[in-house]
Amino acid sequence: MVEINEKERIDDLQLKGLRLIQNTETFCFGVDAVLLSDFADVKKDCRVLDIGTGTGIIPVLLAGKTQAKAIAGLEIQGNMAEMANRSVILNGLEDRVQIIHGDIKRYSEYFSKSSFELVVSNPPYTNKGCGLVNPHDSKAVSRHEILCSLEDVVSSAAALLVSGGQLAMVHRPERLADIICSMRNNGIEPKYLRFVHPKPYKKPNMILIKGNRGGKPELKVQEPLYVYNQDGTYSDEINKIYGREVTEN
Amino acid sequence: MVEINEKERIDDLQLKGLRLIQNTETFCFGVDAVLLSDFADVKKDCRVLDIGTGTGIIPVLLAGKTQAKAIAGLEIQGNMAEMANRSVILNGLEDRVQIIHGDIKRYSEYFSKSSFELVVSNPPYTNKGCGLVNPHDSKAVSRHEILCSLEDVVSSAAALLVSGGQLAMVHRPERLADIICSMRNNGIEPKYLRFVHPKPYKKPNMILIKGNRGGKPELKVQEPLYVYNQDGTYSDEINKIYGREVTEN
Repeated sequence: MVEINEKERIDDLQLKGLRLIQNTETFCFGVDAVLLSDFADVKKDCRVLDIGTGTGIIPVLLAGKTQAKAIAGLEIQGNMAEMANRSVILNGLEDRVQIIHGDIKRYSEYFSKSSFELVVSNPPYTNKGCGLVNPHDSKAVSRHEILCSLEDVVSSAAALLVSGGQLAMVHRPERLADIICSMRNNGIEPKYLRFVHPKPYKKPNMILIKGNRGGKPELKVQEPLYVYNQDGTYSDEINKIYGREVTEN
Repeated sequence: MVEINEKERIDDLQLKGLRLIQNTETFCFGVDAVLLSDFADVKKDCRVLDIGTGTGIIPVLLAGKTQAKAIAGLEIQGNMAEMANRSVILNGLEDRVQIIHGDIKRYSEYFSKSSFELVVSNPPYTNKGCGLVNPHDSKAVSRHEILCSLEDVVSSAAALLVSGGQLAMVHRPERLADIICSMRNNGIEPKYLRFVHPKPYKKPNMILIKGNRGGKPELKVQEPLYVYNQDGTYSDEINKIYGREVTEN
């Protein structure tokens, strides 16, 4: 039996019966994590690291949807890591998913170099120093670069990925230049870029980007991902990512 | 009287009676140049440099559409520069537009440092070394980085722009990472990025990017520019850029 604490709830992920524990007072997963789980290329038997796993949504989704061999989720906030670990147990995924409470800046204490084929991250979006934030506030830690900067994510991914391995991230468009420069400076070449727009004719509010460690320069900007069609209905692609897989099972 | 050579034709630019001489055997201007002319921020009385001006389309359009004080067009190919110069005379723009036959790598021989508020460029799109090209072929010189690399454009723009001045370029999406890194490495911060798509749901085939010399990091990814609507008609924006201005005159 997995214990559910006060202010926590169990959400049904609508995918192969997977469920996730969330706390209404801390950061809850959003469309970002779901889109990133769909965007990353998860090969059979690969080893995956999720940097800043939060609720554990990405490891749980990837364990349910892919044939990844092992998925590690690293989380700096103890209360989040503990809750994510209970979600792993709740879904009986202990053999493939491991939640680690730790700091990505000290990655070498938990992982060997070149030990992952894929690193994913839905990192804090806002640059340190932008706006007033409380470093003891769990939601702020999830949203602002207080304990984990973009550079921390990319440089540690570069060390932990095998040659040719992939870093896949979801982020905000205003950080695109920072992301591209950080990747290239760390030897991860940006290869695929996708913009997520609320609907056609609207500016994007999210980016999905994949880079390869040691890849050759040439960025493929893919078709836009629209959340809604022009008429306000969900796009076919969003329906497919969220729902159709349920009926296919 | 302006002389028109064999294989040349005069095209009506459909804007304030402006006309342009083009040679059917060399590179002719495309939608790229027209969109860049619309995308760049041309302030009243500013000094503008167009690097790799080709037919002179951008200086002629900007002279017709804006209140720029002086527009210089630099072109490395003598035959193109000579033809562009005749287009300037044909339109009676000699007081504001100057075509210079020269090599951007030797920019300091023609221009003083920090002497432009705006640098625009529709440079060759293809990286040197990609594909077999004939360096004596005028079309190849316009399309491939044989005589002018992306780095040449950005580094010379950085030297020639005033502090806070703008570099505006049109390019291909696959070079986005190169462009962003080159700008930032040269002290030009990417500020506005716009993707041009043939139509909604299709991947972009062109990018428009503006950076500021010495600007602060924060990239604004703007609304997509669709050439056609989903139903195959020209988008309102393309109609406006191309045609509506004719009826407004």
